[in-house]
Amino acid sequence: MAETAEDQPPSYTDVPVGLAATGTRSEFDSLGAVDVPSDRYWGAQTQRSLLHFSIGNDHMPIEVYRAYGLVKKACALVNERAGRLADWRSKVIVQAADEAIAGALDGEFPLFVWQTGSGTQSNMNVNEVLSNRAIQLLGGELGTQRPVGPNDHVNMGQSSNDTFPTAMHIAAVTELDDRLIPKVQALQQEIAAKAARWSDVVKIGRTHLEDAVPLTVGQEWSGYAAQLAACIGDLLHAREGLLELAVGGTAVGTGLNAPAGFSVDVAAELAELTGVAYVTAPNKFAALGSLDPMVRAHAALRGLAVALMKIANDMRWLASGPRCGFGELLLPANEPGSSIMPGKVNPTQCEALVMIAIQVMGNDTAVSIAGSQGNFELNAMRPVIINNFLHSARILGDGCEKFLDYSVRGTTLNTERIEKYVAESLMLVTSLSPVIGYQNAAHIAEDALANGTTLREAAVASGHVTAEQFDANVNALKMVGDGPGGA
Amino acid sequence: MAETAEDQPPSYTDVPVGLAATGTRSEFDSLGAVDVPSDRYWGAQTQRSLLHFSIGNDHMPIEVYRAYGLVKKACALVNERAGRLADWRSKVIVQAADEAIAGALDGEFPLFVWQTGSGTQSNMNVNEVLSNRAIQLLGGELGTQRPVGPNDHVNMGQSSNDTFPTAMHIAAVTELDDRLIPKVQALQQEIAAKAARWSDVVKIGRTHLEDAVPLTVGQEWSGYAAQLAACIGDLLHAREGLLELAVGGTAVGTGLNAPAGFSVDVAAELAELTGVAYVTAPNKFAALGSLDPMVRAHAALRGLAVALMKIANDMRWLASGPRCGFGELLLPANEPGSSIMPGKVNPTQCEALVMIAIQVMGNDTAVSIAGSQGNFELNAMRPVIINNFLHSARILGDGCEKFLDYSVRGTTLNTERIEKYVAESLMLVTSLSPVIGYQNAAHIAEDALANGTTLREAAVASGHVTAEQFDANVNALKMVGDGPGGA
Amino acid sequence: MAETAEDQPPSYTDVPVGLAATGTRSEFDSLGAVDVPSDRYWGAQTQRSLLHFSIGNDHMPIEVYRAYGLVKKACALVNERAGRLADWRSKVIVQAADEAIAGALDGEFPLFVWQTGSGTQSNMNVNEVLSNRAIQLLGGELGTQRPVGPNDHVNMGQSSNDTFPTAMHIAAVTELDDRLIPKVQALQQEIAAKAARWSDVVKIGRTHLEDAVPLTVGQEWSGYAAQLAACIGDLLHAREGLLELAVGGTAVGTGLNAPAGFSVDVAAELAELTGVAYVTAPNKFAALGSLDPMVRAHAALRGLAVALMKIANDMRWLASGPRCGFGELLLPANEPGSSIMPGKVNPTQCEALVMIAIQVMGNDTAVSIAGSQGNFELNAMRPVIINNFLHSARILGDGCEKFLDYSVRGTTLNTERIEKYVAESLMLVTSLSPVIGYQNAAHIAEDALANGTTLREAAVASGHVTAEQFDANVNALKMVGDGPGGA
Amino acid sequence: MAETAEDQPPSYTDVPVGLAATGTRSEFDSLGAVDVPSDRYWGAQTQRSLLHFSIGNDHMPIEVYRAYGLVKKACALVNERAGRLADWRSKVIVQAADEAIAGALDGEFPLFVWQTGSGTQSNMNVNEVLSNRAIQLLGGELGTQRPVGPNDHVNMGQSSNDTFPTAMHIAAVTELDDRLIPKVQALQQEIAAKAARWSDVVKIGRTHLEDAVPLTVGQEWSGYAAQLAACIGDLLHAREGLLELAVGGTAVGTGLNAPAGFSVDVAAELAELTGVAYVTAPNKFAALGSLDPMVRAHAALRGLAVALMKIANDMRWLASGPRCGFGELLLPANEPGSSIMPGKVNPTQCEALVMIAIQVMGNDTAVSIAGSQGNFELNAMRPVIINNFLHSARILGDGCEKFLDYSVRGTTLNTERIEKYVAESLMLVTSLSPVIGYQNAAHIAEDALANGTTLREAAVASGHVTAEQFDANVNALKMVGDGPGGA
Repeated sequence: MAETAEDQPPSYTDVPVGLAATGTRSEFDSLGAVDVPSDRYWGAQTQRSLLHFSIGNDHMPIEVYRAYGLVKKACALVNERAGRLADWRSKVIVQAADEAIAGALDGEFPLFVWQTGSGTQSNMNVNEVLSNRAIQLLGGELGTQRPVGPNDHVNMGQSSNDTFPTAMHIAAVTELDDRLIPKVQALQQEIAAKAARWSDVVKIGRTHLEDAVPLTVGQEWSGYAAQLAACIGDLLHAREGLLELAVGGTAVGTGLNAPAGFSVDVAAELAELTGVAYVTAPNKFAALGSLDPMVRAHAALRGLAVALMKIANDMRWLASGPRCGFGELLLPANEPGSSIMPGKVNPTQCEALVMIAIQVMGNDTAVSIAGSQGNFELNAMRPVIINNFLHSARILGDGCEKFLDYSVRGTTLNTERIEKYVAESLMLVTSLSPVIGYQNAAHIAEDALANGTTLREAAVASGHVTAEQFDANVNALKMVGDGPGGA
Repeated sequence: MAETAEDQPPSYTDVPVGLAATGTRSEFDSLGAVDVPSDRYWGAQTQRSLLHFSIGNDHMPIEVYRAYGLVKKACALVNERAGRLADWRSKVIVQAADEAIAGALDGEFPLFVWQTGSGTQSNMNVNEVLSNRAIQLLGGELGTQRPVGPNDHVNMGQSSNDTFPTAMHIAAVTELDDRLIPKVQALQQEIAAKAARWSDVVKIGRTHLEDAVPLTVGQEWSGYAAQLAACIGDLLHAREGLLELAVGGTAVGTGLNAPAGFSVDVAAELAELTGVAYVTAPNKFAALGSLDPMVRAHAALRGLAVALMKIANDMRWLASGPRCGFGELLLPANEPGSSIMPGKVNPTQCEALVMIAIQVMGNDTAVSIAGSQGNFELNAMRPVIINNFLHSARILGDGCEKFLDYSVRGTTLNTERIEKYVAESLMLVTSLSPVIGYQNAAHIAEDALANGTTLREAAVASGHVTAEQFDANVNALKMVGDGPGGA
Repeated sequence: MAETAEDQPPSYTDVPVGLAATGTRSEFDSLGAVDVPSDRYWGAQTQRSLLHFSIGNDHMPIEVYRAYGLVKKACALVNERAGRLADWRSKVIVQAADEAIAGALDGEFPLFVWQTGSGTQSNMNVNEVLSNRAIQLLGGELGTQRPVGPNDHVNMGQSSNDTFPTAMHIAAVTELDDRLIPKVQALQQEIAAKAARWSDVVKIGRTHLEDAVPLTVGQEWSGYAAQLAACIGDLLHAREGLLELAVGGTAVGTGLNAPAGFSVDVAAELAELTGVAYVTAPNKFAALGSLDPMVRAHAALRGLAVALMKIANDMRWLASGPRCGFGELLLPANEPGSSIMPGKVNPTQCEALVMIAIQVMGNDTAVSIAGSQGNFELNAMRPVIINNFLHSARILGDGCEKFLDYSVRGTTLNTERIEKYVAESLMLVTSLSPVIGYQNAAHIAEDALANGTTLREAAVASGHVTAEQFDANVNALKMVGDGPGGA
Repeated sequence: MAETAEDQPPSYTDVPVGLAATGTRSEFDSLGAVDVPSDRYWGAQTQRSLLHFSIGNDHMPIEVYRAYGLVKKACALVNERAGRLADWRSKVIVQAADEAIAGALDGEFPLFVWQTGSGTQSNMNVNEVLSNRAIQLLGGELGTQRPVGPNDHVNMGQSSNDTFPTAMHIAAVTELDDRLIPKVQALQQEIAAKAARWSDVVKIGRTHLEDAVPLTVGQEWSGYAAQLAACIGDLLHAREGLLELAVGGTAVGTGLNAPAGFSVDVAAELAELTGVAYVTAPNKFAALGSLDPMVRAHAALRGLAVALMKIANDMRWLASGPRCGFGELLLPANEPGSSIMPGKVNPTQCEALVMIAIQVMGNDTAVSIAGSQGNFELNAMRPVIINNFLHSARILGDGCEKFLDYSVRGTTLNTERIEKYVAESLMLVTSLSPVIGYQNAAHIAEDALANGTTLREAAVASGHVTAEQFDANVNALKMVGDGPGGA
């Protein structure tokens, strides 16, 4: 409710974070009073949720609460600036929000992912904690909701329905910016560097898993680098959609109980606070009723997973052996490979990354289903979506980092094996095809395979080419073209 | 193989498409001779594939072959221009390709989706058909591969490995441009028009399926329109990735057996032929070894499915009744609804669209798994990907069209019901919250519900507001804000 | 409506199936009159559906209509027996139903998958076709619904809501019994036979793709056989759930308008007609409101897909090469492998089967989402579920058949290569582990790898064993245990 | 290695669990020495894994380690009994294993899910911890691997490749038996009880979300109960497959280094220790190379999710309102519903359960992909599978419990609303259909809707029935049949 004259500023003391009390204190909400642990800042609704929703071990990710700290801070500043919130109230709300942002209140946000689908309980958790922390800073009595109330002041001009998706977007962008994208970039750069380093090492190509015509190791790795570069581009594109914020839509998108201009002002304040180009979502009904930008952003994570799975699989197959596999790559031996087979070294980082990719593909199914299940003015599947998004982004980022540090960086070539394959392969016959025709070339390869001879022997024996012609045309070094662009 | 002096141009006769012969003729490939039906243009490899892969009823979509016609035409023109292919050969290959593009050869492409993972058999099907059609035009003998051979001329400078993904991209872009995007745009425009038309009709909002504060019908529909507009934007973004073509990479990406500049020239020719801004893929190893742009493009289809499911679900719930449901919308009655319950009209278009959305979400799982299963220089999961892509795009496009024509366009409002809900709802109490505080407002709503009274009666009885104050503050018309942007 | 005295039997003539008329005739339903093609048996509701739902190329599978023929026949017989349907009406309905069952009316069922979610339009299509065919047999006028009406007689005692899921179950069981299960069994038996044949061929094992301790080829293949045997068991279990039929529940599960005992009688009649142990579903509300047995049955298809993917992948990796891969298996060369690389033979059947498995996994996502979207007394996602089920079952069955005929049956061993790997592998050191300890054994393997020596040389050099001790303990033949059961 | 004479029993002291030391101590494995925290029991390989795989927040579930304790205990007992392991070694290994089983060592198992795909690192974690704990009990020096070594004694006769899937099965069965199945049963029983209690309350049915013919509330709920009963049956069926254990297969399934009979003996010992009917897997190559029984078991979880989603959705739709929705059910108000709309009560338990169902469906995608990615003698996707299985089972179990306690149990009927709908509905006309024909009945319903009259008025006005006939035939009480079985 609006500030009135009797809202006199109580005295402020900069008490450090923490509640020394033991036992319980009484908190209340519109359903009545609830006892909460005295050493916790949270209030009645958080306590109710803890009772009703202790399901499994999935807690609402802390990143959501830190993002929520930014939202509450921005709203308080905008409300203060417009004269709706007394400056002394704003000051303590902002201080408490800063503490939440910095992680100093992490232990105060115990709720589970499996709660109300709007995220209301987590919003109220934030409101209650910031309210009580603000009360503490003002020397008030916790649980009284005075002089700083969770609904009337911390949540002023807001609803869970608009602030929770706002916090989702901010948490997602932060994860992308601070962890995932830099880690993928680092991996991409190392792979690109290896592509450059190995640009002259000719190897046998393989299609359908079968021997094919040669290329260079550098060309093969340039393909990985190109895949990852495109994934980064797609992540950046998807990130754009997350910059549009729902705050200002309040309960159903109309902005009821928020003052005119609130949505634009809060988005601008959040952009200022974070340095990220946040703007207000142009349509608040879509922003509350759907989670389409999150679904799209997870699709970009899924695209990265798909690319990483191909790369990690290639690496582990090319490193298979040491004596009975492909054996072209030598991966670093980070740990003993087997509890029973001594001396075994396994492609464990590749396996971990493949499993991560699979998890992300599963999470993507969950996100897309959840995204489709909005009704009317609300998509009430928010917690499952943000939890899966942050889960996927986190394991992809960390997975890329470990894969880079403990597998890609230390990977070397078994050049002896690589050269042996090029020398033995029959597919170099392809370069005879333009000279003697496809069918004749095919028969030469078949003869060599059947008789266990070299391609050169079979070619000369076929009578279609002389030894000199063979040597002039069949040269692996000349078959790899120039760079990544093909002919 | 290169053109030689003895390649004298045979005489050309513009015979219409069609083979009148009966029985079988002999065709051959590198494995030997095969009998094929005399009234078909295809050759040995197509016939072998028909034998080995008659699996279910899934045929490689005809759109792939029409796109392949463009690829073959462009390659022939580029090869001719560079002097690699005699002009008389190019002429008949181009004519046959034009016939394929126009659909005149549709019946000649009988292969199944479940075939070799590179699409080689479909490429050879095209090569064989165009070769024999070209031979026919030149008065030659079908099955001789002379004077126009499937490998040496129609496939000149090409491999399945680079042309099949090229045809995939072209088929996908064509489907997006010619069918899906225009149909989604038409739907979006009608929804936006209805949003404008109904911008002043106040209705009750619903969150968590529960009564909430009011908005206008136009605002609700503006959310749908905004969702679809964003989906179109995402489709256009995903389309960009499909403009990069693999052709010129040949067997493994190095461009072996294709002349220098082939990739750039063929892409330019395809751009010229289609008016679409195709370019050569900058990295051919990624273009052959992965199908990441297809995976991303299907994610955009999936994003559309997710949005449509929300919209179609909203419509059918809002139309539920007629007497025992929400009943705010009146959908057109296109057919009797029940074989046993007379007079029943069901939201069948909505159901069809929801099922389509679900199918697309399932297809998306298949595409993402397939996209992850590339190995080395080839992703050998191409047929399953292009089939799912074209399937999804097609049913989404047609589904949107029918949904527009037979459901959205004829949808009207049951204004009597809409007004009744606004009058009865308790959630208008929210506008008292800034005046008397959240908790007091909550108790008023609870009292009204418990006693079956109106909100106004309960509010006045509470003593927190006078009847005058109530009327001044609680007015649904004033609660809906202004337009789509929230506060 | 009940039979009355004035229902005098018209004269019956056994006219063959077919309508020679041209142009259109008028048909009607509760919404009014509709023109339909004169040479078609269908009526007004089918025609309306064709107009409103021509979406893509997905037609309701013909198997559903053949199953529906059984349902209509059984209902007519039960109704006749109870005196509710005149015998002369029953006779012609049964004849028309028999024609549908036999496929003689296949062309009369043109509707699309994407239609009303209850399948009502397909039920009405059947009702209309059987009604008009019956009218024809009785010399009546098509389109009059007299003397055999689509609703009053063909659909007597039924609703789409109970008969469509009944037809779904019957179509699914038929597909399992007639095609899928026998084909998987044939594949399983051939694999088991090969496991027996190759039970003494020692090969190197591979875990994490890396060389491991030996086993026999027969043991490896016994694992595939065991996987498939378990899949068959699971299919049979899932099939049990499909034997429970919804018919008799009518519109919402209560059986309204169906006579007492109808559900039990019709199920018994269907069991009699088919020889399959169909029974009535004990709870009709679950049978109409959910499609859980279909979801479970598709999970069994998915389980088969998962197993087949492992087997097909193993085969293509073990056949990789011929010179630069594992090369232990020789797959039959059914077709030329490459349009550009002469002499290449690819594991195309394996690729097709892997793509089929991926499609089934995608279909499974669609089926599970659809299964979750029931509301109240109906799951209105039936068409998408039955279409995916029959699609998955069909491509799995045909895929197994082709995989068996063109890949598994002709697969042979490259024993030279297999023996070479056993001789070279370092992992035989594992059998020294119980003698000299794990760490010492590990160091021997590492030394051999580092120095390029044999294991025997490295072992003796280590001083931990003598050459005699080595020979006594390290013997691949003694390391493979006995049969499939492990130690 | 085998026990020898010099293995003299050191003295045993029953030191409590715990290490008081600070700093680090040196541990070693075949790659060399590693410093580990002195207050931890784990050894070199655990420490290496912690360094290389700190990815996200997903830790290998503790349930896996407790199950692993059972495996290690059973193996020690079998080895001791056969004279392969000195009794004093067995005694301390068993004591340490018992401590792991009881949870006393939970803090010693810190590894991440994203590790080697065989689970080797977790097996070695167990081996190292039990070894060091055993050494402590025998007064030895931690880190020496003497007199009880992690590989030679704790892992005797075992490999990660056979014990990890064994622990997976045991952990999964335990979760099913101890938590999930009892919780689903409790929910099923309460729903069945409510179905019985409400067996006489007539309500309007709804199909396609549209008004349909009546049924009783009890019938509707009996459908839910039947769905859940079938899910329980399917869980029990899937559980059967998990009773088959891989232990005894060792590294590749041959049982190398395990004594004859080991697999049977250990399975019997595990059955004895747990009271669960575990047996040895008949084919160890399938048991190591695939994870098919886990994939099948997760499909049963997915089936439960699908059923629960339908039930939870029905409940929240039927409870929608209070004034502008269906409003037939009254759910308990556990918490304030909105941070901005006072007095709002939301179906939060239903939403949580729907989100859980969606997560399980996503996890199912991950499990099925992972299950398909085995190669040769190992499926190296184990950690992602067991983590998803235990995650799904846990949130389903807890979700059912909370849903029961805080939503289903307290749900009551709004009988006034229920009766009003029955009185107003037009679909009662269906009972006139057998009397006056389907088309006439349809027109009566349409007239009533168009004119806003009651069905009775419209029926009499139609002239097809008298008021007396109407009353005799149209009676909701007579339309609901008898019980759950339909007609």
